[in-house]
Amino acid sequence: MSVTAAKGFTAAGIAAGIKENGNPDLALVVNNGPRRAAAGVFTSNRVKAAPVLWSEQVLKSGQLAAVVLNSGGANACTGPKGFQDTHATAEKAAELLGVGAGEVAVCSTGLIGVLLPMDKLLPGVETAAGLLSEHGGEKAAIAIKTTDTVHKTSVVTKDGWTVGGMAKGAGMLAPGLATMLVVLTTDADLDAGTLDKALRAATRVTFDRVDSDGCMSTNDTVLLLASGASGIAPEYAEFAEAVRTVCDDLGQQLIRDAEGASKDIKVEVVNAATEQDAVQVGRTIARNNLLKCAIHGEDPNWGRVLSAIGTTDAAFEPDRLNVAINGVWVCKNGGVGEDRELVDMRYREVHIVADLAAGSETATIWTNDLTADYVHENSAYSS
Amino acid sequence: MSVTAAKGFTAAGIAAGIKENGNPDLALVVNNGPRRAAAGVFTSNRVKAAPVLWSEQVLKSGQLAAVVLNSGGANACTGPKGFQDTHATAEKAAELLGVGAGEVAVCSTGLIGVLLPMDKLLPGVETAAGLLSEHGGEKAAIAIKTTDTVHKTSVVTKDGWTVGGMAKGAGMLAPGLATMLVVLTTDADLDAGTLDKALRAATRVTFDRVDSDGCMSTNDTVLLLASGASGIAPEYAEFAEAVRTVCDDLGQQLIRDAEGASKDIKVEVVNAATEQDAVQVGRTIARNNLLKCAIHGEDPNWGRVLSAIGTTDAAFEPDRLNVAINGVWVCKNGGVGEDRELVDMRYREVHIVADLAAGSETATIWTNDLTADYVHENSAYSS
Repeated sequence: MSVTAAKGFTAAGIAAGIKENGNPDLALVVNNGPRRAAAGVFTSNRVKAAPVLWSEQVLKSGQLAAVVLNSGGANACTGPKGFQDTHATAEKAAELLGVGAGEVAVCSTGLIGVLLPMDKLLPGVETAAGLLSEHGGEKAAIAIKTTDTVHKTSVVTKDGWTVGGMAKGAGMLAPGLATMLVVLTTDADLDAGTLDKALRAATRVTFDRVDSDGCMSTNDTVLLLASGASGIAPEYAEFAEAVRTVCDDLGQQLIRDAEGASKDIKVEVVNAATEQDAVQVGRTIARNNLLKCAIHGEDPNWGRVLSAIGTTDAAFEPDRLNVAINGVWVCKNGGVGEDRELVDMRYREVHIVADLAAGSETATIWTNDLTADYVHENSAYSS
Repeated sequence: MSVTAAKGFTAAGIAAGIKENGNPDLALVVNNGPRRAAAGVFTSNRVKAAPVLWSEQVLKSGQLAAVVLNSGGANACTGPKGFQDTHATAEKAAELLGVGAGEVAVCSTGLIGVLLPMDKLLPGVETAAGLLSEHGGEKAAIAIKTTDTVHKTSVVTKDGWTVGGMAKGAGMLAPGLATMLVVLTTDADLDAGTLDKALRAATRVTFDRVDSDGCMSTNDTVLLLASGASGIAPEYAEFAEAVRTVCDDLGQQLIRDAEGASKDIKVEVVNAATEQDAVQVGRTIARNNLLKCAIHGEDPNWGRVLSAIGTTDAAFEPDRLNVAINGVWVCKNGGVGEDRELVDMRYREVHIVADLAAGSETATIWTNDLTADYVHENSAYSS
């Protein structure tokens, strides 16, 4: 159901010929109102793609009528011409939909440093506009895939209103935000400020805590559009919870489809002095290549967890650290704990708990293992 | 020649049975004076192995009579028992050599979280002490190998005095210090303060700028011992230069032997506002898994260089960045530069220049590519 699960939205996904293999590569999502409130969160990478620069600007009004998304090219590091192309894309969609270009966000994903084939993209926008449908969410989700093996959608329906969305992302997945494009829609009747607050609260504890390979993209974008078509204005807490649930679900789908991964790794840091410490330690563990290799080999190598923790400036004493892998406390008080032979690592999900014994804060970071398939995919594929 | 190239030193390397495969695993280096000045630099990992805690303490006197080194076990995360074992090792060597235990440094490398087999190690120290020789440097260098495919030694001889050394390290190689054990010796007649100054100046621009896989060890140790046996006290600048040359050579040997690597990558950051910015940007590029995969695939993927630079807080403007790969400026002013097809990546050494256009400072970080062999080695081998 994706971005058209909520009332008031139409979408389309087509093959415009941007990808040389002929796969779907262009999506259009339209908010038909009555409201057109919107919020967005973008990559914190200082090298930002043209569509990110454009969409950040557009979002300042708190209003969006449509989003054009393309795969097959990131339009990043493409200079003034790249920005003109993004602008022309928004103008084209605006003209077709009878709205202003300043109400159209643009998202791109694919290879960095290559100009988009505008002779294919602009006619594609026209084709997509002609195919807009209340059932188009699935096709839109398919059209934004790059190395994703599956398309990702999620929907939460509450009492009379809905939050739904789609996501893409499989590599260059790291925090601030996890590298990806996400469009969320809702028919709840809420203003842009409320959307912004709920979206930031949700991404901070979901996408921001997904760290597949430590590489932050130039194109990360998460948009939330509200049509108000349900006529219902839910309580903030309930709405925020729904947004977080959809973000969490999509984030999990991103990790499960990470390039080359054979294990999904949940790194849970407990008893940290601060939440910031917990996040820092979790992220550092999640980015340790040696540990990620060990997990791939089903080796409960807790020494690599400790050596990772030791590189952070979080509050802890080395001789009070405890580490559990899949429920077995293999490290106690900084030394050898329960027998590592007891750890069962046959399943896809691996759960690492790092106990800092320094407070009561906690955070969970999701990552995956490092595999030869990841290397193969990323040494052969320019993305 | 290794650690016995300088006059006044004897060494031995033997198989004590610590490694189950029977390979050499114990080295002893002795300073026979007349001076016994020494300096050391240790891992900045907060989780420090027992031998690091011991040797840091011992070095406070600025004096060392001997160093015992073992491979086959890191003696890290081994609690009070691990520290007792290190102490017993130093006591044993001290007793055999007729010196104080407080003049004996200990270094260990291998698997974290396992106690050393002291019933093999202590008799090994005795055997090694009986085999000490002015020609033992090579055997000592061989005995400290773990996953190293070759042993590493380097010697610089000046006018009547010498600096020589040995190193081990192939994985868990990252800054502060690059993960490794290094023992340097000199027959120059210098005090501990001078040794310390020269050693810190050298490691800061050599081992500290080697970053194979971003993983910092619990056991990194670099020691410099001076016997004074040449009777010559060289000028500081000349001595510091010799120490830096040996460190640089050993650092290069570490990178060339990095686990699974097929490419040695020199990341040179130029025109940075500060040296700190240059080092930060160089390290961030060197740690980008996606870029390391691309280099493995001989793909001059400069977009991944820019996306890495963008995650730093160094001073730069995105639209003024330039990147050269093997002499071709593939990125100019943050956008497409010279034709990437011109980049020849057939050779083992790859040279990336990142021009921040923000000042005049520079730094070079050495790393290597990320390969399926690295994954295989580190998913199968507990280290």
